[in-house]
Amino acid sequence: MIIILRHDASEQDAQEILQKIDAAGLKPLHMPGSERTVIGALGDERVLESLHLENLPQVDLVKPVLSKYKLVSREIYAQDTVVQVGNTPVGSEQFTIMAGPCAIESEDQLLETARYVKQAGATVLRGGAFKPRTSPYSFQGLGVEGLKIMHQVGKETGLDTITELMDVNDLDDVARYISAIQIGARNMQNYTLLKAVGETQKPVLLKRGLSATIEELLLAAEYIVASGNPNVMICERGIRTFETATRNTLDLNAVAFIKERSHLPVIVDPSHGTGVRTLVSPMAKAAVACGADGVIIECHRSPKESVSDAAQALSPQDFHTLMQQLAPFVTASGRTLAEVAYAS
Amino acid sequence: MIIILRHDASEQDAQEILQKIDAAGLKPLHMPGSERTVIGALGDERVLESLHLENLPQVDLVKPVLSKYKLVSREIYAQDTVVQVGNTPVGSEQFTIMAGPCAIESEDQLLETARYVKQAGATVLRGGAFKPRTSPYSFQGLGVEGLKIMHQVGKETGLDTITELMDVNDLDDVARYISAIQIGARNMQNYTLLKAVGETQKPVLLKRGLSATIEELLLAAEYIVASGNPNVMICERGIRTFETATRNTLDLNAVAFIKERSHLPVIVDPSHGTGVRTLVSPMAKAAVACGADGVIIECHRSPKESVSDAAQALSPQDFHTLMQQLAPFVTASGRTLAEVAYAS
Amino acid sequence: MIIILRHDASEQDAQEILQKIDAAGLKPLHMPGSERTVIGALGDERVLESLHLENLPQVDLVKPVLSKYKLVSREIYAQDTVVQVGNTPVGSEQFTIMAGPCAIESEDQLLETARYVKQAGATVLRGGAFKPRTSPYSFQGLGVEGLKIMHQVGKETGLDTITELMDVNDLDDVARYISAIQIGARNMQNYTLLKAVGETQKPVLLKRGLSATIEELLLAAEYIVASGNPNVMICERGIRTFETATRNTLDLNAVAFIKERSHLPVIVDPSHGTGVRTLVSPMAKAAVACGADGVIIECHRSPKESVSDAAQALSPQDFHTLMQQLAPFVTASGRTLAEVAYAS
Amino acid sequence: MIIILRHDASEQDAQEILQKIDAAGLKPLHMPGSERTVIGALGDERVLESLHLENLPQVDLVKPVLSKYKLVSREIYAQDTVVQVGNTPVGSEQFTIMAGPCAIESEDQLLETARYVKQAGATVLRGGAFKPRTSPYSFQGLGVEGLKIMHQVGKETGLDTITELMDVNDLDDVARYISAIQIGARNMQNYTLLKAVGETQKPVLLKRGLSATIEELLLAAEYIVASGNPNVMICERGIRTFETATRNTLDLNAVAFIKERSHLPVIVDPSHGTGVRTLVSPMAKAAVACGADGVIIECHRSPKESVSDAAQALSPQDFHTLMQQLAPFVTASGRTLAEVAYAS
Repeated sequence: MIIILRHDASEQDAQEILQKIDAAGLKPLHMPGSERTVIGALGDERVLESLHLENLPQVDLVKPVLSKYKLVSREIYAQDTVVQVGNTPVGSEQFTIMAGPCAIESEDQLLETARYVKQAGATVLRGGAFKPRTSPYSFQGLGVEGLKIMHQVGKETGLDTITELMDVNDLDDVARYISAIQIGARNMQNYTLLKAVGETQKPVLLKRGLSATIEELLLAAEYIVASGNPNVMICERGIRTFETATRNTLDLNAVAFIKERSHLPVIVDPSHGTGVRTLVSPMAKAAVACGADGVIIECHRSPKESVSDAAQALSPQDFHTLMQQLAPFVTASGRTLAEVAYAS
Repeated sequence: MIIILRHDASEQDAQEILQKIDAAGLKPLHMPGSERTVIGALGDERVLESLHLENLPQVDLVKPVLSKYKLVSREIYAQDTVVQVGNTPVGSEQFTIMAGPCAIESEDQLLETARYVKQAGATVLRGGAFKPRTSPYSFQGLGVEGLKIMHQVGKETGLDTITELMDVNDLDDVARYISAIQIGARNMQNYTLLKAVGETQKPVLLKRGLSATIEELLLAAEYIVASGNPNVMICERGIRTFETATRNTLDLNAVAFIKERSHLPVIVDPSHGTGVRTLVSPMAKAAVACGADGVIIECHRSPKESVSDAAQALSPQDFHTLMQQLAPFVTASGRTLAEVAYAS
Repeated sequence: MIIILRHDASEQDAQEILQKIDAAGLKPLHMPGSERTVIGALGDERVLESLHLENLPQVDLVKPVLSKYKLVSREIYAQDTVVQVGNTPVGSEQFTIMAGPCAIESEDQLLETARYVKQAGATVLRGGAFKPRTSPYSFQGLGVEGLKIMHQVGKETGLDTITELMDVNDLDDVARYISAIQIGARNMQNYTLLKAVGETQKPVLLKRGLSATIEELLLAAEYIVASGNPNVMICERGIRTFETATRNTLDLNAVAFIKERSHLPVIVDPSHGTGVRTLVSPMAKAAVACGADGVIIECHRSPKESVSDAAQALSPQDFHTLMQQLAPFVTASGRTLAEVAYAS
Repeated sequence: MIIILRHDASEQDAQEILQKIDAAGLKPLHMPGSERTVIGALGDERVLESLHLENLPQVDLVKPVLSKYKLVSREIYAQDTVVQVGNTPVGSEQFTIMAGPCAIESEDQLLETARYVKQAGATVLRGGAFKPRTSPYSFQGLGVEGLKIMHQVGKETGLDTITELMDVNDLDDVARYISAIQIGARNMQNYTLLKAVGETQKPVLLKRGLSATIEELLLAAEYIVASGNPNVMICERGIRTFETATRNTLDLNAVAFIKERSHLPVIVDPSHGTGVRTLVSPMAKAAVACGADGVIIECHRSPKESVSDAAQALSPQDFHTLMQQLAPFVTASGRTLAEVAYAS
């Protein structure tokens, strides 16, 4: 830990801090500069945090040397983690395709969409039963009924399933009916929720908050892993910036950065990341190219009739085209796609 | 509602949409331009939303004419709402001062701080029992024990109290022990929580999310009011921008803008809004000047020993100075401060 | 153009505006809603702009229907524009590789770097003679001497050349010695400069400003084209967001979006777009995948000794590896790389 | 300077860096931690910059201890600088009011507006002769003719004058006719322009770029001062954020922060900072309260007819009201307004 003193701090101020560091069992270092004094402290930074040196009036800045996440870091575990979502090995040599509607509207709608996406090569079916909506007057989802529909459709098609959990009280139902739990962007720092899913062994797809830094995203993942659940997948789904031409700014830098620092698999959501139907395919290809382990795509049997987020949903034909366009890039990246099963 | 067609949309595309609008019982308007066709729809926009015109491939853009919030808007209710937090009338001619430590650490710490802030003119005591922390390894708060301490300190000092609620399961305890509930920035779109506090009549201080637009903030308030609880106070606490010199960027534009559009009281948090102790006083004065109804300030009996957010906490002496500096601006704004009670 | 009136506007206010629109020779449309009145105006929006309807106190919002750029839009010109930079056809079926050091430091340094990048497959040599530096105390470039060095190195290696122009007074020198002119991010809205390069026929690489929207970027390109120079290439080089893990946030959404809306070629700068050496290769691959026409890469014969931006510069070996990794993605995208000439 | 090594750096890597620091005449400090090695270097950081330690592959991060600006810092000069704009002492105990139209349209328009703003208490007349416009098809200003008009109006009313300079080639004309030079937000890092005005002794109002950090803003000011001109005023005029309800986000945190760190006067522009006429007055009051030295306000004799930025321009009546509302806050801040001269 590096402690930079204010320019008017005295020699005595410095000595006081050096003694505190020493008393905590760490090794203090004194660096009196021509304009500022800098102090170093060698040892376990967590012990140092409890000293709260940043509270001292003569201290200008305290800079930790290490990032705060540990368990999700490659410094702890160098290999790629593979998270098993049903039969789908996320983070493996096989590039993962998750697809499905924004919201579960009916069994008929979900089943038809599921068959289309499976035919085109998806192995995980997405769809929301509980919908976080900005306006209280918008459709809020089918709830537990939706979970049951998804369970049924998963069984019929052989697809693994994923759905968003918003409320701890729904955790048991989601865990019973669905293969993997999604934590949405708005709940990335809902620590109650993070700890609750951390106490299960269910695979969790943790979506980046709209204005969450990469460090905060990895710390949110750390919450889950530290609670006992190592099966965490990170999802980059676009951040909020000044640009309004696209709904969000898909931050693919973050994908490459996280793959370098963390062993967790990374999934990209180009549907929310752009909010524009025609941009989903180019950005899915870019996701493959920058090292993502999979994509999650909104697809609806009839986007015209989708009750939510229709502007970004692909039709079955669009999705089929996307998969064809994606294939050579998956090959270029040295990965494979799941074998397409033309029956269901 | 305005619907702008793509530049290659045909006359038939336009007719299809015009008929949909007509069939929904609204009045369609056809505006064929030289380069683009624009269609208008007159009537209740909520009916139009269910048409999902944005899903049609020939549609480029759908622009609602009205903002989506209603109940919190001055168009519905023109006067200023006054929310009663215990004995403190927030949104009235009296400028509200809420102050206290970031976290409740002990009865001793809270009581001593409470006495100081009351002496200097605060009427509401703040302090966290449940702490949302970015890192799972940081102090997470005293929990229900903290609520009891705050209840006791409130009784002893005559201060009204406010604390953050993070988990629906703690709602009963918070409602029992504390005067007002704070919804933190990270939970501004935790709809489970919003609906739960909306089903009580407790005063709610709703903090703006780090990257929430003003419209999203007012829609989050609308969730609470639409659930039955009109006692909502808005809190501007800084947004996340590219600037890193300050912890957040306090958006006082938002205060003036919300006061113009909404009848709800607005509180400013210059402690989180700057993250820098020496900037709290100038920004509190600016909050008064731009029309805020109150401020919420972090104050600790001994910032050196604070377990969290110490860089922005004021000492009792600092807080006393701030109140003295604030007074002439409160007078200039045509408001008053609560009479200072020099006993407790 | 759509004009939305304030909710308290009267029927007479509406009539006044309708008459103004009519008097300007356009077709007015009246849309009195239940809560707001909306007015449409059909015809050439530029005429409408001079009416300044947004100035009227009863007007809440004026929304133009069309984007403001024309000449750079695919609505005017549907095919892809190919800009010829010396012998390099940018925007063609050949994927363009521009590479070289941040700053020209000496003939020796530039020549050695140029030979390496040519060997690996680049056809355009980049390097700064005039350096925009945030601090007045940093190295500011070799100036005209640098241009002469680059001219000489271009001749010796057969590489085309590109360098940044910051000052109109240097335009003649840059145009004499260098194949293409770069307008840097800080000068994207330096209209004096845009008009000056617009009056030449030199190819111009226009870099996106740190906080420029896509619309502003295309309008800046429109300045150049409207001044008479159609040879414009757009460069996405990262925008400024709240994320600090990377130097900028490379916005590949913008690449896909611009390729859809504009006929101009788009180059991606993953060196500035990430600021992190190890992220240059994954983001270059992503640029290929999302439809960019080329990349511009910082490469230095010895990054350790680079006088600027060293953290993002590739060594010749790194650059060679990047080119090998890029090749399968270029093939997957249906494009080619220039044939590598192993002599120089 | 603090140098943090990568977690896989060896003891030999550390020794190599320590020797480089020593060879440069500085004092090296070795801090081998349990997970990372940190190295300190004591002495003049500018010497260290030329070592380019960040280029070494084993280095993760180089953190300078000091801010890069010097001449504009209070560490060099503790008192408040007063910049004399004609007869107006900016940064003094008198709060400065600059006002006038966005663009100079005619002598008649400017003179009438000037008389109104003088009557209400302004002492500096603003108005653009050269207009930076996002679209090449918008009005670009009257040019030198506008400067002459402003000169004449200044003489007739006794107002000091300020106008924007965009092109070095216009510097002589602006300096001849106008009291103070404005550098616009788009040109904040146009170093050619900064150096040119730095070689005069004219007062310069330097506006913050839309996405410029406070540090970059102060470094741009440093360019001017380092070129020989100490007469620099800083202008906060709103930054670009995700919020679109207001045109920009006025960052008053920055005002308080800069007043603490720099001795230069700070002016706030609530007209561009909000872009909304009704928000100008509350934000002007907030500017006074947070410690600004003055405001610059757009005012037009007839906003309905303004050729640009009309949505934010005040009418003479609005401006008069603003001045009346401002007065008690100026008094509360311990400052004064210029005595209003009711003749002209």
